[in-house]
Amino acid sequence: MNLSVDQDKLLAEIEELACISEAEAPIVTRVVFTAKDLEARGWLLARCEDAGLTIRRDPIGNMFARWAGSDPEAPAVGTGSHIDAIPNAGKYDGVVGVLGGLEAIRALQRGGFRPKRSIELLIFTAEEPTRFGVGCLGSRLLSGALSPEAAAKLTDSDGRNAEKVRGKAGFSGELRDVKLPSDHYRAFVELHIEQGPLLEQQKIPLGIVTRIAAPASLRMVVEGTGGHAGGVLMPDRRDALCAAAEVILAIENAARASGAIDTVATVGVCEVFPGAVNSIPSRVRLTVDVRDTDLARRDNAMHAIDDAMRRVAEKRQVSIHSELVNADAPADCAASVVGALSDACRKHAWPFLSMVSRAYHDSLFMSRIAPTGMLFIPCRGGVSHRPDEYAAPEDIARGTLVLAEALASLSQ
Amino acid sequence: MNLSVDQDKLLAEIEELACISEAEAPIVTRVVFTAKDLEARGWLLARCEDAGLTIRRDPIGNMFARWAGSDPEAPAVGTGSHIDAIPNAGKYDGVVGVLGGLEAIRALQRGGFRPKRSIELLIFTAEEPTRFGVGCLGSRLLSGALSPEAAAKLTDSDGRNAEKVRGKAGFSGELRDVKLPSDHYRAFVELHIEQGPLLEQQKIPLGIVTRIAAPASLRMVVEGTGGHAGGVLMPDRRDALCAAAEVILAIENAARASGAIDTVATVGVCEVFPGAVNSIPSRVRLTVDVRDTDLARRDNAMHAIDDAMRRVAEKRQVSIHSELVNADAPADCAASVVGALSDACRKHAWPFLSMVSRAYHDSLFMSRIAPTGMLFIPCRGGVSHRPDEYAAPEDIARGTLVLAEALASLSQ
Repeated sequence: MNLSVDQDKLLAEIEELACISEAEAPIVTRVVFTAKDLEARGWLLARCEDAGLTIRRDPIGNMFARWAGSDPEAPAVGTGSHIDAIPNAGKYDGVVGVLGGLEAIRALQRGGFRPKRSIELLIFTAEEPTRFGVGCLGSRLLSGALSPEAAAKLTDSDGRNAEKVRGKAGFSGELRDVKLPSDHYRAFVELHIEQGPLLEQQKIPLGIVTRIAAPASLRMVVEGTGGHAGGVLMPDRRDALCAAAEVILAIENAARASGAIDTVATVGVCEVFPGAVNSIPSRVRLTVDVRDTDLARRDNAMHAIDDAMRRVAEKRQVSIHSELVNADAPADCAASVVGALSDACRKHAWPFLSMVSRAYHDSLFMSRIAPTGMLFIPCRGGVSHRPDEYAAPEDIARGTLVLAEALASLSQ
Repeated sequence: MNLSVDQDKLLAEIEELACISEAEAPIVTRVVFTAKDLEARGWLLARCEDAGLTIRRDPIGNMFARWAGSDPEAPAVGTGSHIDAIPNAGKYDGVVGVLGGLEAIRALQRGGFRPKRSIELLIFTAEEPTRFGVGCLGSRLLSGALSPEAAAKLTDSDGRNAEKVRGKAGFSGELRDVKLPSDHYRAFVELHIEQGPLLEQQKIPLGIVTRIAAPASLRMVVEGTGGHAGGVLMPDRRDALCAAAEVILAIENAARASGAIDTVATVGVCEVFPGAVNSIPSRVRLTVDVRDTDLARRDNAMHAIDDAMRRVAEKRQVSIHSELVNADAPADCAASVVGALSDACRKHAWPFLSMVSRAYHDSLFMSRIAPTGMLFIPCRGGVSHRPDEYAAPEDIARGTLVLAEALASLSQ
């Protein structure tokens, strides 16, 4: 079989989808269940129908476009990603996996391939946490990582719950019907931009993911004692920001001292109250995000953070409370999918990097119900979630071709 | 001369003035040149006229209520404070010095005292930095610490400049006419709540200020490199918040290591960009406030902060810029005023604490043009700038009586 990707068509579709955005090009803003998200979904389903695929939409809005195989009862092979985009995002995150997946199916069709297992393109709802505060809403529900009850109660910043919002967006049925059994897919493979700099730095065009790192995240509140910046002498202070500064450095150190390069820790939010030039901070709110490919190592880092928190609280006589927001387990990619992707690369003599996915993706949750793998292509400067996010056309086409070959092999 | 303070009248006036507020009692919000500030000014001038005082208002809105002495050409003795209040403040900050000053004059009048030098009650415009970002606007102009040109250009958060705002509030004339010559006052003395805990802790009813600490303040911006909280490994990070945390701790240490208890340093504002759970901070904005009673020591602390800033920037490969917002010199109180206050305390056998003013006041600027002193009374828990700010009636009356006796002695 000789496969070829229609690079021009694929690129034109990426541009076209990027224009369905609340912001002006090149800025993409397409938050789940907004008018632009619904418009993009419609546009996309039309492209899938053009390819002869059969559409199914589940109650949370995950969409499935199936190319029926010769054995339609056999577990299918899935591919796909998401098209929702955070405010001020770029064109490629998620979209490359969705439109690349569609083009991979079309390439197989054009090449005369006839799959035994059905091949299904998945478009997941709300991979981005923008609206409901939790990432991968669709794949969490689909894999059973999130209960239908918890999902229904999620609210957006306007206080509207997910149950109502999905209804208004035209998705009905019971959320409990979203979950798929663990024998539903034979394999799932997601094409994605790397969202990191390694492929570009090492000038390697393809990355095959072996593990997907997963975050544990905390909300932390440091409570000290406020006061006038002139009036309280240093020995009498219980400055919440100085305490927070020690905790921030301890969090950084917990990752650095883990013994492995794969441990990362980030304090992304630091809010100070009252936040006035001449007031000693009385309260600081932090968020903590710790990721690793290894659950035990991540747990160790979390323990180190917990110890530091107690130590700082005692030393500085402040109170520090932390609340665990989520702690998803990292995932191993399936040997079958990694093998299919590696074989495809080798067939073309394209070098690839075996790597870790440090961002998390719908694949993290798909791995709970299906043998799962991911294929990365380079993105310029490792930049993502910004309007200047960029992946080169030849890299997108190359990834799409490898995906097509892997789908072909997995669907036999 | 046997003086007595009309405690009931004074307390009733404090309550009455507290009700002229944008917020409901006990919250006082009275920002300069708002309707409530203007209403309070009118109410206060009526009280001054009732006492037979002659009113002058200067172009920036400082108000002067004069009890003419028998030698009206001789440099007067001034007393007073401010009545503007930050949002969500209490009843006593500033007000005790203004209404206590007025009652001190009335007590002298009732006692049959006849001053040689005129005694003048000053009500300063905008001691609080709330509206125009700079504290002590009125006394800065009056003392020449701020140029009329710079004052005119100050803008509020709605972008209105001080020049227009004062005109709309009914204050006309040239700002250059606000400045008073250095022989205008023989002495200035300000009664104020301590805004710190020492008098209460030591159970001493009166504090006589010998030095007024003054702040130097900086705006600091740390610029690192953002990125995905999962995607960038620890060795590759230039996390602006981790750098800022080191700077915050170095600032604390610069004060702690100064060799004197009087050095204090505060980071009151810490704003993180982009401020998202899963984003590495790319930029952090800090404010730094360093105070001391000794200018050289404060300068040393500022140098230590500057060194730490450079060290952290180099070590972490981030850029850190700082901008000096202000650096007022601390002031010594005048021996003549300290002596008059001490004599008055001793006359009644009231113990007093010789102390430092750690908050800064209009007196800091008055000290540039007049021998100046301050008298403190306790405030509960050292609390100020809050609705639960509280000074006991007997402490207010005692301070007012000491003030009256000191004014009597200084006006001879």
